[in-house]
Amino acid sequence: MNSPGSATTVNAPEQVFDWLDSEATKRAEAGLVRRLRPRGSDTEQLDLAGNDYLGLARDKRVAGAAAAAALRWGAGSTGSRLVTGSTELHAELEHELARFCGAPAALVFSSGFTANLGAVTALSGAESAIVTDKYIHASLIEGCRLSRADIAAVAHSDPDAVAHALATRRRQRALVVTDSVFSVDGDLAPLGELSRVCRQHGAALLVDDAHGFGVLGDGGKGAVAAAGLAGEPDVVITLTLSKSLGAQGGAVLGPRRVIRHLVDTARSFIFDTALAPASAAAALAALGVLRDEPELPGRVLTAAGELSSRLRAAGLSTSSPEAAVVSVRAPNPEDAVTWAARCAEQGVRVGCFRPPSVPDGVSRLRLTARADLTEADLDRAVRVIVESAPEGAKA
Amino acid sequence: MNSPGSATTVNAPEQVFDWLDSEATKRAEAGLVRRLRPRGSDTEQLDLAGNDYLGLARDKRVAGAAAAAALRWGAGSTGSRLVTGSTELHAELEHELARFCGAPAALVFSSGFTANLGAVTALSGAESAIVTDKYIHASLIEGCRLSRADIAAVAHSDPDAVAHALATRRRQRALVVTDSVFSVDGDLAPLGELSRVCRQHGAALLVDDAHGFGVLGDGGKGAVAAAGLAGEPDVVITLTLSKSLGAQGGAVLGPRRVIRHLVDTARSFIFDTALAPASAAAALAALGVLRDEPELPGRVLTAAGELSSRLRAAGLSTSSPEAAVVSVRAPNPEDAVTWAARCAEQGVRVGCFRPPSVPDGVSRLRLTARADLTEADLDRAVRVIVESAPEGAKA
Repeated sequence: MNSPGSATTVNAPEQVFDWLDSEATKRAEAGLVRRLRPRGSDTEQLDLAGNDYLGLARDKRVAGAAAAAALRWGAGSTGSRLVTGSTELHAELEHELARFCGAPAALVFSSGFTANLGAVTALSGAESAIVTDKYIHASLIEGCRLSRADIAAVAHSDPDAVAHALATRRRQRALVVTDSVFSVDGDLAPLGELSRVCRQHGAALLVDDAHGFGVLGDGGKGAVAAAGLAGEPDVVITLTLSKSLGAQGGAVLGPRRVIRHLVDTARSFIFDTALAPASAAAALAALGVLRDEPELPGRVLTAAGELSSRLRAAGLSTSSPEAAVVSVRAPNPEDAVTWAARCAEQGVRVGCFRPPSVPDGVSRLRLTARADLTEADLDRAVRVIVESAPEGAKA
Repeated sequence: MNSPGSATTVNAPEQVFDWLDSEATKRAEAGLVRRLRPRGSDTEQLDLAGNDYLGLARDKRVAGAAAAAALRWGAGSTGSRLVTGSTELHAELEHELARFCGAPAALVFSSGFTANLGAVTALSGAESAIVTDKYIHASLIEGCRLSRADIAAVAHSDPDAVAHALATRRRQRALVVTDSVFSVDGDLAPLGELSRVCRQHGAALLVDDAHGFGVLGDGGKGAVAAAGLAGEPDVVITLTLSKSLGAQGGAVLGPRRVIRHLVDTARSFIFDTALAPASAAAALAALGVLRDEPELPGRVLTAAGELSSRLRAAGLSTSSPEAAVVSVRAPNPEDAVTWAARCAEQGVRVGCFRPPSVPDGVSRLRLTARADLTEADLDRAVRVIVESAPEGAKA
């Protein structure tokens, strides 16, 4: 075997994955081993870890719509959206999503991940520049890597840095990419300023509103709508159907020509099986609930604010929530894991984010508020999180 | 605005996506515009386009399991597999998939697309060489592009070319990537020979068995099992849950250390919302049906053989099916579209594959056989396809 630069030579089939073991050892030493902990269907634990912000995943109207759709349309969509996978359910969901958010058109993907891959790659390319906030979601980063564009990842929430990168770009065509609500800390991007910068420099703006949609804006229309940018000809929104809408899937919203372009060219749309009918129907039903109950988003924000202020009053280092997410700093990855495990033992499920899931390398608990949290839930959550805190967590 | 190399300067927000219109014009001139044609829930059309090979998507046991799971577990999984998205359903499905295929372990993803991205990227990297068949599925290609590995895409179904690329590679660590059944023409990869070449050269083998699983091998255990490679320490399998199992989602099967490595490092696993409970339950139920009715895969193969031989006898240029897929050559993209539309008008839905969905640039109809096709279905399909054929289609 020709193996220049190799330290070891693989001699037997059993050895080809030996390198995975040394990688695993390195992760173990850094406290970065992950374990799947499958949950049951009971609801005894208080969930402050999921992204079911409006509490709709288990709502009978939403789950019932999913069940009915599975029976009527079948368990799967049977093919790509371009072959047999597009049903009238998908078309109706696209129409209603666009109408709700105030965008001209929408396209449903099987996940937010594939929606982001599709939007970023199809709207850029080797002749484009992309300027991103350095804390954007991993799926947007993967889209940038796939795009062949000239990429500049600039300082977090810094429109001046975006302007500088646009002004000094080496491609005429340009796309600015950001999250609306950053998923780890829950802070809000300066969308209005970013849009102004884009327009000064002839760039399009792509906003991942996964954590803003259903929580921010009038009746939950999202952060882009709240910034007055939803129907603009130079703005594209991506969403998930798995957070506020309690289902599965993703969507891209924007000008009609953008949506047509995605249908023709987005590889993660063309070469992927369409979203299951049950998930499309659930998202559609949840959108109806959100329209009927426009007070739900406000409840999420109130609960997040309560969580944050009470934890901070108890001496913990928390973020100031601008949407549903509250983050609480941990001294290090091991302490974060222990802290989350102690909370779980006491019936409170919290998220534990460690490298590489945190852009700044700081481990933390990630708490998410829900519209259906009660005063008693909040009391219990704060008590358990504070009592379980490790030594170095209090400022 | 600094815009070196630019032909035009964008002056207004309305103009930033003007380039999409010229791209659309180019596609229109090349006959490559795609339209979504949402279908209703009735089943009057004879479907020879979907990938529901065993006819299980609408099977009452499968759709019923999806419906029951939505009601019991909720419409969505509420988070990443690493946070709140892993349910006991996902764990049971992974256990049963591994057991059925004869692999040590399995990991469920939200789609086959994200499973392929995750497997290819996590099992390679900047220090790896990847050698692929040049006709692999788009999702595997995207995985290669993301991997930062040294990529060699070699001639189709050519183990000698793979051996040469492995022998001359500049990285010690190596991964060979192939489809088992190529999705466009339905031909089979030489898995046994590829495995021998991998072992001669110290490489791991990754096989996308999306179109083999449920159709090939003893009782539908798949093409990798049929080649005697399912439980091997140097072989990794990827699957979809949306074809033979009639649901949605994807999976990676392989050695335990491979699965652990994916949990810790695969970005399309870590940063994606978990598969909806309804889809996991549907796949699990379909796997049970397949176990109880091991004759289903043979029926698919018989139907595909019939379709191919009858169309060839009528003078059309068809592939010789080795699984469920039969392809029929069309003279050009426009004729392929017209041909498929004529079939649809007469109640037979066929796939129409054009660039960029065909690796060799040749447009064709793509027909898929199903276990539940009757003799009358086959008669009707052949009659309609032959009568609708354009001038140049007959050899």
